[in-house]
Amino acid sequence: MDITHIEHLGIAVKSIEASLPYYEGVLGLKCYNIEVVEDQKVKTAFFKVGQTKIELLEPTSEDSTIAKFIEKKGEGIHHIAFAVPSVQDALDEVASKGVQLIDKAPRAGAEGLSIAFLHPKSTCGVLTELCM
Amino acid sequence: MDITHIEHLGIAVKSIEASLPYYEGVLGLKCYNIEVVEDQKVKTAFFKVGQTKIELLEPTSEDSTIAKFIEKKGEGIHHIAFAVPSVQDALDEVASKGVQLIDKAPRAGAEGLSIAFLHPKSTCGVLTELCM
Repeated sequence: MDITHIEHLGIAVKSIEASLPYYEGVLGLKCYNIEVVEDQKVKTAFFKVGQTKIELLEPTSEDSTIAKFIEKKGEGIHHIAFAVPSVQDALDEVASKGVQLIDKAPRAGAEGLSIAFLHPKSTCGVLTELCM
Repeated sequence: MDITHIEHLGIAVKSIEASLPYYEGVLGLKCYNIEVVEDQKVKTAFFKVGQTKIELLEPTSEDSTIAKFIEKKGEGIHHIAFAVPSVQDALDEVASKGVQLIDKAPRAGAEGLSIAFLHPKSTCGVLTELCM
C-alpha cells in the first residue's frame, strides 16, 4: 500500500466549544472548519498541523459511536487516517491480506473525503481510516 | 506556541515483533530503527509516514507506564508529539496558561530528541509531548 502521509487524527471530545481554548489558545492552532457529519452523528472541527489535520469529534447524539467511545475510554485520540491514492484499491489489498474491514467500499466523510475504516482487531488496536 | 508539525505518534503495543507484519506487511511502512529507552522501560520501533513518525512502544517491564496503559485501555494510540522550536520556551508558555506539566524541564527521549510531556488533564484527554 502506498501511504503518502497521515491525513488526519480524529480526537474524541465532549465539546468542541470547550476544547477550543486549548487547541487555539494554548497550542496556537487555528480552527478553519466546523462541519456536522449527519450519518456519523458528529460535529467536527479541523486544524492544520504541518501535513496533518487534527479533527475534533463531538457526538451530536447519545447513540453516536463517539459518545460510546468517550463513555468507555474517555476523551482522547479516536482514530488515525492515512492518505492513499485509491481507497478502493487499498481496501482490496488489505482485505486480501486478511485485514477485517468496517467499510467494504469507500463512503463520504467530512471535508469531501472518500473514506473507509479498518477494524482495530486487525490493526494492532488502532482504529484506522484510509482516505483520499 | 509555534508548532511546526506532528513529530510522531506513540502507539502502545504488547509486542513489536508481533506488530511488524501489520505495519510493514499490510501498511507497507519500513521500520528504520529499534531502540530501548531504559528509563521509560520501553522498546521503541520507528516508521516514517510523510512528515510524521510512528513510534511503537513495547513495555520492557510490568511496571512500565506502557504496560499499565495497555492493561487499562488495551493496545492503541498512547500520545501525540508536536515539534516545537524550543521545548523549554514552549513549556514556560503553556505553564503560564495554566497547563499542568508532567515534565517541568526537557529530558532525553528516543532518537536523541529533547522531550517533555503535558498532563492529559490539561490537554482534553490526549497525552501530549513537546519535542525538538
